Order: sequence, then structure tokens, then C-alpha cells
Amino acid sequence: MTAYKDMTKEQLMQEKSELVKKYEEIKGYGLNLDMSRGKPGKEQLDITLPMMDVLASSSDYKCENGMDVRNYGVMDGIPEMKRLLVELLGYKAEQMILYGNSSLNVMYDTVARSMLFGVQGCTPWCKLDKVKFLCPVPGYDRHFAITQQFNIEMINIPLKEDGPDMDMVEELVSKDEAIKGIWCVPKYSNPTGVTYSDEVVKRFAALKPAAKDFRIFWDNAYAIHHLYADNQDELLNLGAECEKAGNPNIYYEFCSTSKVTFPGSGVAALISSVENIQEIKKELTIQTIGHDKVNQLRHVRFFQNADGVKAHMMKHADIIRPKFETVLDRLEQELAPLQIATWTVPKGGYFISLNTLEGCAKKVVEKCKEAGVVMTSAGATYPYGKDPMDSNIRIAPTFPSADELAKAAEVFILCVKLVSVEKLLDA
Amino acid sequence: MTAYKDMTKEQLMQEKSELVKKYEEIKGYGLNLDMSRGKPGKEQLDITLPMMDVLASSSDYKCENGMDVRNYGVMDGIPEMKRLLVELLGYKAEQMILYGNSSLNVMYDTVARSMLFGVQGCTPWCKLDKVKFLCPVPGYDRHFAITQQFNIEMINIPLKEDGPDMDMVEELVSKDEAIKGIWCVPKYSNPTGVTYSDEVVKRFAALKPAAKDFRIFWDNAYAIHHLYADNQDELLNLGAECEKAGNPNIYYEFCSTSKVTFPGSGVAALISSVENIQEIKKELTIQTIGHDKVNQLRHVRFFQNADGVKAHMMKHADIIRPKFETVLDRLEQELAPLQIATWTVPKGGYFISLNTLEGCAKKVVEKCKEAGVVMTSAGATYPYGKDPMDSNIRIAPTFPSADELAKAAEVFILCVKLVSVEKLLDA
Repeated sequence: MTAYKDMTKEQLMQEKSELVKKYEEIKGYGLNLDMSRGKPGKEQLDITLPMMDVLASSSDYKCENGMDVRNYGVMDGIPEMKRLLVELLGYKAEQMILYGNSSLNVMYDTVARSMLFGVQGCTPWCKLDKVKFLCPVPGYDRHFAITQQFNIEMINIPLKEDGPDMDMVEELVSKDEAIKGIWCVPKYSNPTGVTYSDEVVKRFAALKPAAKDFRIFWDNAYAIHHLYADNQDELLNLGAECEKAGNPNIYYEFCSTSKVTFPGSGVAALISSVENIQEIKKELTIQTIGHDKVNQLRHVRFFQNADGVKAHMMKHADIIRPKFETVLDRLEQELAPLQIATWTVPKGGYFISLNTLEGCAKKVVEKCKEAGVVMTSAGATYPYGKDPMDSNIRIAPTFPSADELAKAAEVFILCVKLVSVEKLLDA
Repeated sequence: MTAYKDMTKEQLMQEKSELVKKYEEIKGYGLNLDMSRGKPGKEQLDITLPMMDVLASSSDYKCENGMDVRNYGVMDGIPEMKRLLVELLGYKAEQMILYGNSSLNVMYDTVARSMLFGVQGCTPWCKLDKVKFLCPVPGYDRHFAITQQFNIEMINIPLKEDGPDMDMVEELVSKDEAIKGIWCVPKYSNPTGVTYSDEVVKRFAALKPAAKDFRIFWDNAYAIHHLYADNQDELLNLGAECEKAGNPNIYYEFCSTSKVTFPGSGVAALISSVENIQEIKKELTIQTIGHDKVNQLRHVRFFQNADGVKAHMMKHADIIRPKFETVLDRLEQELAPLQIATWTVPKGGYFISLNTLEGCAKKVVEKCKEAGVVMTSAGATYPYGKDPMDSNIRIAPTFPSADELAKAAEVFILCVKLVSVEKLLDA
């Protein structure tokens, strides 16, 4: 195969006419496939089914501290579920609040609380003329949606192989008091799959922000979501580094079991310094009597301990690894020689991030949609939906079945080729 | 028995010395009893245990619209659970959003959203110099805690036998644009147990507030929480009345299964006009991907339909009615002849509301505590914890066992007598 850039105009035109023919053929199939969201597939949901037998009418509903989990009380979560997270993530129980089923909701709430009541005695953000967040890009669209909703100005920060551009982060936060936060997915990042290096984590911990109420929003969504049993990334514990650096209150860490058990029915958690957690609990006590403790008990009785969770995650890996490989193999075979796209090869998480030639992403996603394959909207991985190069596309291979995925990948690759060849012909 | 007011000083002193003796004796028992919160007792929790067998590993997890409830999606709740609430409360499914386990949290969120983003295009409340809420009193302490948290000024409105003083409500809302809401528990009110009359509901529906973004916060917490099978209160459907009155957007109704199934693990709902619900959904879509649909499915498969829920509520009634009767009988026998307190005799809900002689409530609650019986803090039923007469005490008889309750009632009655006799001697 010849790289497109090395083709003559005639060769490109010949290629285009073949691609158009194939594309029209595929449009006729009436496909209805979805590679847009990081949703587990049915087979993944099924491995958690035994959890549904753990609590039955004959079960004991007391948690360790003697409380009946069916009743009101224990606002911040039952001790044994906290301990499970402590084992997995390496914090102390006093640094945690367990929530309901959605860590996105916890992040939203954390921003909302800062807007309304301020952070550790500082002016509530809603009383300030301007609030800004740093946004490593490409990143997670739902993070950007939250800050946009609150009218918080978002500033793009390039996300490199080892994490965000820390020179830029350090400079910006040190001189601009309006910068109150940064969105991070530090492990198996959404969508690029990178894990922040030890150096990057340490530089985060050592930040000297102009704003006293600046916080790192550390969305550790894929903390244990490896694709391989051996070839795994390690992420430094942010809280421990922040303590060492004399910056114990600078971070909020978020996590959940959404992609461990059931996405709609898991347990989420907020982790931070004891001081931050105490402040938040004081406000939370007005907001709710408590979250679903029956479901917390169900989770911990099912997993027993961290090893139980880790073994479960390997079952997920065994299901989704082949899906990643299907897409990656096809990209490698069919796109690599043409030199019209680059992509990430993640070791965990839920996404492959692909960059087309400049100015092609929107058209590719549109063409896919016309042919019955839904991709994440082009631009979604950037604040305000604006990818300055119009080149990044997030591929989510986990939800479709193996068959569907092969077909979806075929359509996607065809669309990348077609839009690329059209671009080169237009140039 | 002679009424205290008719006793001579000598008789009162004699009475006091006997009461003090008894009180010191009881303090020696080392009791640890709780009549402070509207918590179901263990026996009540147990009647819901069969719900825990409804979804098992072998179950089908698809809801009516074909969605797998285990996965992400269906932000506003599964159709069959909405239909169950429609049957029970008489609204349309499009008027509902189902939430997680806590209606308190839904109310908090509704106030928070109004603060941050405003209501139907009006200025966000956080941008206003002053926001006020009307608070029928005595009322629910957690309502008042929410408005206090948001620095909303609370104005007491007397709660009468048929609902709030509507002359006062109408006058205040019609002339003060800063009044943005009113907290209501319209059925088996917390704590007095009154149900708003048809006329009161119609007057609410016909309000002509100065503020376009004034809303009635209708916490229908005890909609189906009757104590008797036959002697039940009926509440008009607020939404229907608001539509008739040309005021369709003026209300938010809140409800939950907290005291139907498990307090920590139920399903809550927000009900309003289609227009309000659409506005809220637009914001909610940023806030969460969705609530726990597995638990929604568990609930609806357990109950099947409204009749299933109603039958279940009668089981609750059979358990808690004797507890109410224990307290009410003792009050009637031991306090009525002394003419030192009045109290409500509710047909539903979770509370008995008792008024002591003026200036006695705080002392009674303190004395109870010293003797090992925790009551709701005196003053808690008023905004800012300030009962102007210092006379209202909320009694929550559901949580203690029958034995414990009898003992707790004995202590409570003794303390009312003792504080009253001291007051009369001081006068």
C-alpha cells in the first residue's frame, strides 16, 4: 500500500472512486452501531450478576459498626466498604466519603458547592467575576460540560505522553488567581490512555497556586481498569505526595465502581485531606441523610477484599482486550500504511484516541453516522466542543459485540480513508 | 387528679418532691432510648425483606423500553416505576423525574439549582440581595436547615388545623418579590399530622405571587402513610389544581419510598409541570448520567402495582399504630387531667406534636436527655431552632421497640410534669 501523501492525483482519484463505491454499498446495509460512549457490554455486566445473590431476604443487614444498613444513618459510608477502597487506593478511611451510584454527580456537586459556599473560607466562586479551570486536552467531555454549565472559563492544556504540560500548568496557576481547578484523568486517561508519570504527579503535588482555593480535580475513573494482567501502569498516590509537599488540601480525588460492577448501580467516592472531608461533610449533612448503604454492603460482601476486586477486573480485561485488539489491528493493517492517522495503544481504560489529518474529524464522524455508526461527536474531547485542529476522534470499543465491532471498525476506517483522500484532492 | 393550675403551692411542692424522687430513680436505670427521629423500626424494615429476593443472578434486567437497567442511561427513571407512582399520586409520567434514595437531596438540589441557574429564565437567586421562604410552623427541621444553609431568610407562618394560614401566605407572596418559596408537608404534616384541606390546596394553586419564580415546595413525604385502614385523610392533587388555576408551573412535588421500603435504599421522585421538568432535565443531564435503575426495577417488580404498595403500607400501619397508641394513651391518662400540655392525634405520618406550657420545651428535652431518652431538640420544629413560645416538642414513636417506647414515654411524661410544676412554682 502506498501512503496517500505519496500518491499522484490520478491514484487518489482512483482510490476515491473505489472508496465511494464501498461507502454507498455499506450505507445500504442499514447498520445501527455505537462506538460513542465508554459503556461496558452485556457480557461484562453479566460477570457481576452473582453480586445480586449476595443480599437476600435471609441475609444479615448489619454493617461492622452494628448499624442496620437498611435504615437512615451513616452519611459518609459503611466502614467495610471504605476499607475496601482504602486497600485498593491507599488512603485512610477518614479521607473518604462514599456516595451513590455516580462519581460524575460527585464532581458536579463539588464544583456546585464551591460555587455556592466557597472552599475553606474563601469567597464562593459565584461571587467572583471570573472563574477559570485548566483542561488537559484531549479530555473527558462530561468534565467540560460541568465547567461550561457553571460558566467557568476553560483553558486548554496539551496532554502529553506523561501527563499535562506541567510547565504551562505551573506558570498559569502561579500567576492567575482566577484559576480554581484543573480536570485530570490521571490513569488510562480519557481518551488518550496515558498515565501521569511520577514526576508529573509530584509536580502537581508541589503546585504553588495564586488561588488558595485552587483544587486538583483528580478523576481516578480507571484506577484499576487494566487491559493486561502484567503490562500495567502504576500511578503515584496523589494524596501522599501532596502531604509530603506540604499541600495536603490541594486535591479532590473521585472514583467509582461504575465500570467494576454495574454502571447504573455502583458506589462512588470522594477522597481528600481530612480537613477538606470534614468541611464537605458539614455541608453534606444538610444535603442528604445518607446514600444507599444496602448497595455498599452488597458490593463489599461480593468482593470481600481488594483481591476480589482485582480478580474481577481481570475478567473485564479478558472480555474487552479482544475488542481493543480488533480495532487496533485493523487500524494498524489498514490505516498505518496510508499515513493519514495516528492513534494511541492504551494499556487500560475505555478508549482509543485517534487523530486524523487536520480538518477531517468532523467529516469522518458525520460520514460514519450516515452509514449507521455512531462515534463520539468530533470536538467533544475539547472544551466547548472545539477541537482547534478538528482531528481528534474518541473510539469506544467496549459496548458493541465482537461482530458489531468488526463491522463498526470497517465503516470507521473506510470513512477516515474517504475523508482523507477528499482532503488531499482538495489541497 | 387535679389540674396543676388548680393546685395550691403546698400541693405543687408535694407533687414536685414526688416527681424529683421518681426522676432520680429513673436516672439510675442508665436508659438509652431514642424518640427523636422519624425512623422506621426493625420490624418495619423486615416486612420489605422479600424485595431482596426479587432480583437475583438469574433475573431479567431489561425494563419495559428494552434498556438493560444495569448499564448507563435512562436519566429520568424507568417507565414502569414512573407508572407505579402515576397510579399512586395521579400525575403523568412526563411530569416526573426519578432520583436515587433521598427526596431530601432532591429538595436540596432544587434549591441549589435555583440559586445557581435561576428558575425559568429569572435571575439566579445567588445574584439577588435577598431571598425569602415562608415556613409553616411547626415544621420539618431538615427543610429549615436547607434554606438556612443557603442564607435564605425564613418567615414563620402559623400552621392551623387545615393547613398554613392562607390569608397571611397570600398577602406576603403577592407583595414581596423576594419570597421565592414555601416549605409544605401537605399530608400528615411533620410534626403536627394535619392534612391541608381542599380549600387550602386550591388557594395554594391560585396564588398570585409577585415573584415569577416563586415555587411551592410540596414535600408529599407521607402521601400514603396512613395509620388506619379506614380513617384516612385525602389530599387534593396540587398539580391538577394548579393547572385549573392557570398556574401550572408554580409547584414542585417531592416524594420517596424511604418509609415504604428501606429508608437508606429507596427511590425518590420530583414531580412538576412538563415545562418545569424539561427545564430541570436539561440541567440534570450535566449533573448525572442517571440514578440507580436496578433499584427502581427491584421496587416495581416487588410491588407490581399501586395496590401492592397500599397493601404494604397497611403492614407498616399495623406495626406503628400500636406505638402511636401507647404514647397517646399515656398522654391522655397521665397528662390530660393535669392540663399542662396539648398534643395532636394524627391519622398518619410519623409524629405526635406536643405543646407544653410556655417556656418549658427546652427544659423537658434536657431533662429527658439526662435520664437517657433522646427527643428531637426543642426548637427544631421552627426556623433557626427558635420556637418563640419554647413549647413545641416532636415525638417520634416508631423507632423504639414496644417495651422501649413504654419506658421512653414514661420518662418523657415525668419530665413534662416535673418541668411544669417547677414553672408553676416559680411563677
